[in-house]
Amino acid sequence: MTKLPKFTEQDIAGLKFNDSGLIPAIIQSFETKRVLMMAWMNAESIALTLKRGETVFWSRSRRELWHKGETSGNAQVVRSIELDCDADTLLISVTEQGPACHTGTESCFDTKTIYSNLEQEASQ
Amino acid sequence: MTKLPKFTEQDIAGLKFNDSGLIPAIIQSFETKRVLMMAWMNAESIALTLKRGETVFWSRSRRELWHKGETSGNAQVVRSIELDCDADTLLISVTEQGPACHTGTESCFDTKTIYSNLEQEASQ
Repeated sequence: MTKLPKFTEQDIAGLKFNDSGLIPAIIQSFETKRVLMMAWMNAESIALTLKRGETVFWSRSRRELWHKGETSGNAQVVRSIELDCDADTLLISVTEQGPACHTGTESCFDTKTIYSNLEQEASQ
Repeated sequence: MTKLPKFTEQDIAGLKFNDSGLIPAIIQSFETKRVLMMAWMNAESIALTLKRGETVFWSRSRRELWHKGETSGNAQVVRSIELDCDADTLLISVTEQGPACHTGTESCFDTKTIYSNLEQEASQ
C-alpha cells in the first residue's frame, strides 16, 4: 500500500485559480456516483478540506469560508480529491451525511432537466 | 411518456451566466458515471448543444466555439442536461465516442489524485 505524498500549501499555490482566487470543485457521491453540487474553493478552503477531511468551500455570496454541514449537519466526508489535466478544477468524491442541496434534495441537479434523449430510446 | 418542453432561447437567456457570459458544464459519462471533464458554455454553445445533441463548448483559450470531437472524432452524444438549483451550472450526461481528455485518458480527472482516504479504509 502506497501512501499519497502530502499535498502542501506550495502545491495548493500551484493550482490554476481564477482572477478571484477561486477554483471550481465538483462534488460527487462516492456511493451513488451522483454529481451532488458544484462549489468554489480558495487556497484556504482547500487547505482546510485536506486537514479536516470534510469539504470546506468559499461562499461567493456570503464572502466567507463555508464548512459544509456546519449548520445543517449534512457534512461531506472526503474520500478522494482528483485534479484535472490543466489543474483548474477539482473532483471531490464524498460520503454525505444528508442532502447536498439546500432545497433538501440529494443533489443540486435534481431541480430541472432541460434536455433528455433517454425517453426516446426507451420507447424504441 | 411525457415529452420535455423545448428549452428555448428565452430559457437559455434566463440562466445565470458569469461576468464573461459563461456557465460551467460538468460532463459525466452516462455509462460509467465517471466525471469526464468540466468546460464552459455561452448562450450560443448551449443552443447548438441542444440542436445537435452533441456537446458544443466555448473555448476560453481559443475564444471560439468548440464542437467536442470535431477534430479528434471523440464527440459526446448528449443523453440529458440538468440544471442546478441556482441555475448557474449544467450537468450533462453523455455517451462518449472516445477519450474525453486531450491526453488520451477517459477522464480529465485521471491526472493526479491529491487526497484519498480510501486506502486507509481498505487496509482496516
